[in-house]
Amino acid sequence: QKRQADIKRSAVSEKSHRQESAELLALNFLLILTILTMWLFRQRQVRFLHETGGAMFYGLIMGLILRYTVSPSSHEVAKVHECRSLNSTPLSLMVNVTAQIHQYKYIGEVSQRKVEGFYASPILQKMIFDPEVFFNLLLPPIIFYGAYSLNQKFFFHNFGSVLTYAFLGTLISCAVIGGSMYGFVKLMVHAGHIKEGDFHLTDCLFFGALMSATDPVTVLAIFSELRVDRNLYTMLFGESVLNDAVAIVLTYSISAYSPRGDRYAFDGSAFFHSIGQFIGIVSGSFAIGSAFTIITASHAYLTKFTRLYEYPMLETGLFFLLSWSAFLSAEACGLSGIVAVLSCGITQARYTYYNLSTEAKGRTKQLFEFMNFIGENFIFCYMGLSLFTFQNHGFNSIFITGAFLSIFVARACNIYPLSFLLNLGRANKITPKVQHMMMFSGLRGAVAFALAIRDTSTEARQIMLTTTLLIVFFTVWILGGGTYPMLTVLNI
Amino acid sequence: QKRQADIKRSAVSEKSHRQESAELLALNFLLILTILTMWLFRQRQVRFLHETGGAMFYGLIMGLILRYTVSPSSHEVAKVHECRSLNSTPLSLMVNVTAQIHQYKYIGEVSQRKVEGFYASPILQKMIFDPEVFFNLLLPPIIFYGAYSLNQKFFFHNFGSVLTYAFLGTLISCAVIGGSMYGFVKLMVHAGHIKEGDFHLTDCLFFGALMSATDPVTVLAIFSELRVDRNLYTMLFGESVLNDAVAIVLTYSISAYSPRGDRYAFDGSAFFHSIGQFIGIVSGSFAIGSAFTIITASHAYLTKFTRLYEYPMLETGLFFLLSWSAFLSAEACGLSGIVAVLSCGITQARYTYYNLSTEAKGRTKQLFEFMNFIGENFIFCYMGLSLFTFQNHGFNSIFITGAFLSIFVARACNIYPLSFLLNLGRANKITPKVQHMMMFSGLRGAVAFALAIRDTSTEARQIMLTTTLLIVFFTVWILGGGTYPMLTVLNI
Repeated sequence: QKRQADIKRSAVSEKSHRQESAELLALNFLLILTILTMWLFRQRQVRFLHETGGAMFYGLIMGLILRYTVSPSSHEVAKVHECRSLNSTPLSLMVNVTAQIHQYKYIGEVSQRKVEGFYASPILQKMIFDPEVFFNLLLPPIIFYGAYSLNQKFFFHNFGSVLTYAFLGTLISCAVIGGSMYGFVKLMVHAGHIKEGDFHLTDCLFFGALMSATDPVTVLAIFSELRVDRNLYTMLFGESVLNDAVAIVLTYSISAYSPRGDRYAFDGSAFFHSIGQFIGIVSGSFAIGSAFTIITASHAYLTKFTRLYEYPMLETGLFFLLSWSAFLSAEACGLSGIVAVLSCGITQARYTYYNLSTEAKGRTKQLFEFMNFIGENFIFCYMGLSLFTFQNHGFNSIFITGAFLSIFVARACNIYPLSFLLNLGRANKITPKVQHMMMFSGLRGAVAFALAIRDTSTEARQIMLTTTLLIVFFTVWILGGGTYPMLTVLNI
Repeated sequence: QKRQADIKRSAVSEKSHRQESAELLALNFLLILTILTMWLFRQRQVRFLHETGGAMFYGLIMGLILRYTVSPSSHEVAKVHECRSLNSTPLSLMVNVTAQIHQYKYIGEVSQRKVEGFYASPILQKMIFDPEVFFNLLLPPIIFYGAYSLNQKFFFHNFGSVLTYAFLGTLISCAVIGGSMYGFVKLMVHAGHIKEGDFHLTDCLFFGALMSATDPVTVLAIFSELRVDRNLYTMLFGESVLNDAVAIVLTYSISAYSPRGDRYAFDGSAFFHSIGQFIGIVSGSFAIGSAFTIITASHAYLTKFTRLYEYPMLETGLFFLLSWSAFLSAEACGLSGIVAVLSCGITQARYTYYNLSTEAKGRTKQLFEFMNFIGENFIFCYMGLSLFTFQNHGFNSIFITGAFLSIFVARACNIYPLSFLLNLGRANKITPKVQHMMMFSGLRGAVAFALAIRDTSTEARQIMLTTTLLIVFFTVWILGGGTYPMLTVLNI
């Protein structure tokens, strides 16, 4: 009988493994399709669709197919109601089933009203990566590569402007979106879509922060092909790389805001605690990232006089491991790994890179380029896929309309006033044309999505996720596709 | 109150995330140390220690430190006894804790007598990667890179010999080790170490199969530096690459052997079923791997006449994704992904590689070299770490002594008779010196370890894991370190 149980059990895990392989294979297949399409497009000089847009499109189609073909089956999920012995949620659970003890690992909270969905379609439910995969595996190389490939000369030349746009701009954008969305939320309550108290001001600000992370990919790809003005390019790039990090820390600080007593009341000490946390995380993470650069740089400097350059694999390996360590150190200290990787990337490009051997330079650059390429297309593919297959969606027309309006207003409130202020001090003025182009190129992408999907336990968060997805689709396809005509109209 | 529960819950997952980061950081740190040491060794022309040996050494030290410094705490694991409502093990569990539903994911079975250990030291328990990570993430690139970097000319020149050693040799080795270990198991029962029935003949054969996977790393690194005879080199390399795949499929077939009725009785139909499965998996996986090569090759051939070569990143991406797809397809069909990747690697090196553009060739090779480098050092580091931190160990002196004797006898029974047979048909004879060297270079490494740690639910499997670890340590440090003197003695 034990033998029978053994066979049954291994059949279960075998089935789960095969299913996971099939899912990854499906994603692989989408990426292959994307590459082939892009290859065709590039050959025909078609410029209106970037590869990320293509990845998203194929993901969407695949999601539609899965949604309407995969038949629901429910024997793999079990509900345990009787566990009254627990009064907190353990990370690991030992369950005694048919005289054998099995280990279960904590995944996360599931909203009460969505539990039924699990029984209806576990295969679709399984089509969900752990959102932490985005934060811990896919996003860091993308951010690092972005920081690493900033043109150093032009970046430091426009350093003040980039910082102003990234910090002040993100804060303005967050406040404008958060504030106006709070108005729309009131409207939703009035229209009876949600109950009073489902959507707090902090939720609106959270949405404002995640919506403030702009994505450089599409626009920059076109810009770099067209060889536009280097100042404009670097400013756009620097802004979009830095504001991702700012937005990530900002969402964290907003989530951590916990006033004592009434949730609606403004609590000064909690507010300043959040601000302190924001500053603490940014500066702490930046310090860790830079510390690792000092280690790498001093090492690379030493190797110049030794013979490590004879082993480019060791150099590249060391470079990779130290950058990854910067990320992990920050995360282990409870700081932001993304900010650490960002500062590590910027400083390494400036100090370490030139001390590497020629061979190692090429290898390192290509390695990160590859990781960036795969990671980015993976995320966009997954975004397309999740529109129809993800369970925790919340569709709300008022919120969506409000969000579309808010992000354009917020972008305008960010770019034009700040450009005016910056122009007061700049010798090389930011022309109105460039300002229009910056306004136009505020696409939303991987970071906004990753922040939105991280937590979908409440209805408010589910509405945010759906809205974020729609905004990403719109901006990448419509604004991204419109960049080329726009450049022609503006005569850049 | 809900707010309080929210905060508590996010604190739990925050803590788990920080701990995971710290663990990865520790491994990163070990790899960095390894690289620095190797760099020093190479500079001083020290040849007795290969980087994998170094990685293992540092892992061991770190494991010792963790073992005796990390204090046990037990609040993160909870035992649920009351779930009598379940009569099978679901892949996903919904648990109702304090009015919130939480999702848990199936990890695996836990042996009854080891459950107490979980309560004693969850941090050490957590220091265990999912063994499937080895099979699905780390091993495939290593095998692929091995197959890919085989010298095509010499490999196909010695094709018959390599196949004989890899297939016939592995079967002989498996049978010899399995048979003699069965004798030692009888001795263990006699000595009262284990109970009759704890260790079956199939368990012994399983051990024989996993012990037949030889590791090329250390010896080949030295061989390639010394520029020994190409035939010897390719034969050794080809054998160790192919026999990994054979051993993996063999263990799978042995596990699947399930006689009806009495477990001790020989069941002809079950036996032939296992043999059929072995042949089916090997040929099926080989077919899938080759099929993907045909896709890649025809594509690469096409691109020669088009302009994909202008985008080396797309070429490399496609190459990587197609190779990975070969692995995933085989796994999704219930075949062996490792064999698919192996055949894909061998055939791609022959047909696809030369159709890539020069730029993409370099990128692709470097990418897989890097993945191989990191993966290999990671596994060896982890092996060192697991000797002192892994919970499911089973130390048995008789079994260990027996295993050390058996593997040498089995290696001799494999190399000398087969070489004699092969020499009858070969123009270019395998000299006694080469035979001694092949005998000597039967190191055990990553594959044997990965197979042993995959399942440690029974006492027999725990004894196997500990023994495997000790054999890997011994062969890598002593035999690996002795290769250079041995080559001098044999005058190669």
